[in-house]
Amino acid sequence: MGSAKRQLHLNAFLMNTGHHEASWRHPGTFPHLATDIRYYQKLAQIAERGKLDSLFLADGYALQGDVSHRVVTGLEPLTLLSALAAVTEHIGLIATVTTTYNEPFHVARMFASLDHISGGRAGWNIVTSSGDATAQNFSLERHTEHHSRYVRAREFVQVVTGLWDCWEDDALVIDKQAGVFADSAKVRPLRHRGASFSVKGPLNIPRSPQGHPVLVQAGSSEDGKAFAAEFAEAVFTAHQTLAAAQAFYADVKGRLAACGRSPEQLLILPGVSPVIGATEAEAKEKEAELHELTIPEYGLNRLSQLLQIDLFSYPLDGPLPELPDVRDINGNKSRFQLVAEMARRDNLTIRELILRTAGARGHLTFAGTAVQLADLIEHWFKEGAADGFNVMPPYFPGALEDFVDLVVPELQRRGLFRTQYEGRTLRDRFGLSRPSARASYEMKLAD
Amino acid sequence: MGSAKRQLHLNAFLMNTGHHEASWRHPGTFPHLATDIRYYQKLAQIAERGKLDSLFLADGYALQGDVSHRVVTGLEPLTLLSALAAVTEHIGLIATVTTTYNEPFHVARMFASLDHISGGRAGWNIVTSSGDATAQNFSLERHTEHHSRYVRAREFVQVVTGLWDCWEDDALVIDKQAGVFADSAKVRPLRHRGASFSVKGPLNIPRSPQGHPVLVQAGSSEDGKAFAAEFAEAVFTAHQTLAAAQAFYADVKGRLAACGRSPEQLLILPGVSPVIGATEAEAKEKEAELHELTIPEYGLNRLSQLLQIDLFSYPLDGPLPELPDVRDINGNKSRFQLVAEMARRDNLTIRELILRTAGARGHLTFAGTAVQLADLIEHWFKEGAADGFNVMPPYFPGALEDFVDLVVPELQRRGLFRTQYEGRTLRDRFGLSRPSARASYEMKLAD
Repeated sequence: MGSAKRQLHLNAFLMNTGHHEASWRHPGTFPHLATDIRYYQKLAQIAERGKLDSLFLADGYALQGDVSHRVVTGLEPLTLLSALAAVTEHIGLIATVTTTYNEPFHVARMFASLDHISGGRAGWNIVTSSGDATAQNFSLERHTEHHSRYVRAREFVQVVTGLWDCWEDDALVIDKQAGVFADSAKVRPLRHRGASFSVKGPLNIPRSPQGHPVLVQAGSSEDGKAFAAEFAEAVFTAHQTLAAAQAFYADVKGRLAACGRSPEQLLILPGVSPVIGATEAEAKEKEAELHELTIPEYGLNRLSQLLQIDLFSYPLDGPLPELPDVRDINGNKSRFQLVAEMARRDNLTIRELILRTAGARGHLTFAGTAVQLADLIEHWFKEGAADGFNVMPPYFPGALEDFVDLVVPELQRRGLFRTQYEGRTLRDRFGLSRPSARASYEMKLAD
Repeated sequence: MGSAKRQLHLNAFLMNTGHHEASWRHPGTFPHLATDIRYYQKLAQIAERGKLDSLFLADGYALQGDVSHRVVTGLEPLTLLSALAAVTEHIGLIATVTTTYNEPFHVARMFASLDHISGGRAGWNIVTSSGDATAQNFSLERHTEHHSRYVRAREFVQVVTGLWDCWEDDALVIDKQAGVFADSAKVRPLRHRGASFSVKGPLNIPRSPQGHPVLVQAGSSEDGKAFAAEFAEAVFTAHQTLAAAQAFYADVKGRLAACGRSPEQLLILPGVSPVIGATEAEAKEKEAELHELTIPEYGLNRLSQLLQIDLFSYPLDGPLPELPDVRDINGNKSRFQLVAEMARRDNLTIRELILRTAGARGHLTFAGTAVQLADLIEHWFKEGAADGFNVMPPYFPGALEDFVDLVVPELQRRGLFRTQYEGRTLRDRFGLSRPSARASYEMKLAD
């Protein structure tokens, strides 16, 4: 980044028909197309038209609860983003893949492959998987406890990056005449032996354009923040207020020095789910229309899972019951805290809490004009709360088009966002340096 | 298939710069492009121009031996074929994925995803993984024994197909007005509990266009043939002679009835690696040019692994030493037998055996005119040796272009091969029926 003007990073978080839980009922969405690749190609091309940094796909490994009242499409991120790589040119492609029920060799290989396929645009959103329903799809009765999932995740990432470093950048010789394909001295085994994994290597694919696909992380618990400080190059996070976002930003950036890293090596991107209108009143009306499409039964189910308490036995228009202590939450701890705090702070009824979280599951929602949203983005960006945003359109494609066609030009006018793509890789977009295989090898030898 | 004229099925087996082990040194190949998706897009488009049924990618999970003298590219099949799905329209896409070091939930989901992405063109080549080098990339010291790999594979496939059957075809309702996304009675858990896996389900992706992506298999051992008879809808196999191919064909087709299946529910596709010339002499010369580019050290390494004996200590121009018994081979048993038999039958020196297997690792090689190859194909097809062929061009793109531009038109003139694509899915290409989720569920209940 050097002395260049600091600019925003914007990611488009793709999800089914949209992030609002009622989006599939919105007249402008196409739920029957949501397993059709052409639908995602269109979304990717809209995002690329807006010069956004990247696309991102979340993932899960269980179908929980009833499918009557919510959209389920479930194209798998690595296959979907590989297909999108073929029809886009510039935009980064970030796939969520769990460390809890996978083998690091497969994960290293698939991301290296996506990085080759996309010409250096791959990113890995590293998650751990909770929930007994997921465990039961992987031959376990119960899921593993929060902290041990992170212990395994840490070793998993060390193995994956180690496998990526097995091939040096200049290992390929390709001298047809002499019959030399590669310099075998530059293709080294890994020989990892740890508590969870023993992986000999080397990886069976040459080093990919970015060296390491970009490492992304999204958990904001204590374990999550420690993990982010050590490994992540971008963090997706959820905050309801500027103050909470600033505190998180200072906290995570402040942990980097102890890991031998500098602040610009990690981007912090809070989520925002915007409904844009020509006037604020129009935007609020559009938001209200979405809210009217929500189905309370679905919201109750969603909140009961998140808060780990059965809300069906309480009156919808009454207050929340006593919640469990966060120490007893063995799921998404940080999101539990955010939602519990939101309910307490604003003294919400159960129905109000459903609506407040229907838009983006606890991420910041916004309804207003493009200028108002640009103001908010600029404010958070300049006041130490964000390096950019994870844009979560409440419905697709309309709300993504509104962001690209109305908000992006306003940010560009303010000099806050690129007007054209420069460089070729996701690392170029994010202003991140390319890791050296040789340097990490030597560091490992020195250990 | 009914009363329609029986026609050939042709698959293009893509691999790096070609199937000949020296292809990367051939002046017409592009080894530096072999991790570039545009290279594979071009190959896919050539195959689709030839109206071929499908593309196929093998796979492996370890980098064994020295990379000095051979091409290593290693794009991962599911990501690669997803990217090709986006730039092709008709051709089937068959990816190899092992059952030995994977979780059935992930595999079911990724193939369902590829099947959605490609509009029903996905196929799964089911393999088991051998070799200590592979085991050591997956936290094991030694690989599992041949028979137990197949026991696990059998249960793995039952879980995967069971997960595909969790969603009925008409489970999606998508009634925005009524707020009903899916009929939850048509989305059922699997509740599998077996020796290797416990998987509750349901899968978190709706049923894909083909119901089941096509199941393909390539092992020809006893375990492999029993497995094929039970599950496979297409079999890739290697034979050096018409008699051997006929015996295999009769054997495998003959096992189907006992599994409650009919002969046309399984296609048998032997490999053939053709060098085509305007005259036979020209073809032989082209083949000799490829052979001259081989590197004996690499061939010795390859054969030593296959035959599980160190050949480096024997004279290149002498006979093969005594080989181990096939019962002691814990790798590819059928390929061991084929190569051992070839050496014995033709009394080959080590150098001769290297050259005889350099073209296609034991698959049938051919050098001649397009008419001669069409004769061979027609002969095997009509004499009960093959339902079609797995075409393994010795070098890309030239030898694939020769097959598509010279051999395919000859087969079309003879009425043996389609002149245009009909239907939309790989099942349509292969003449296979679409499985019913409801029927398999009821069969399971009746158990």
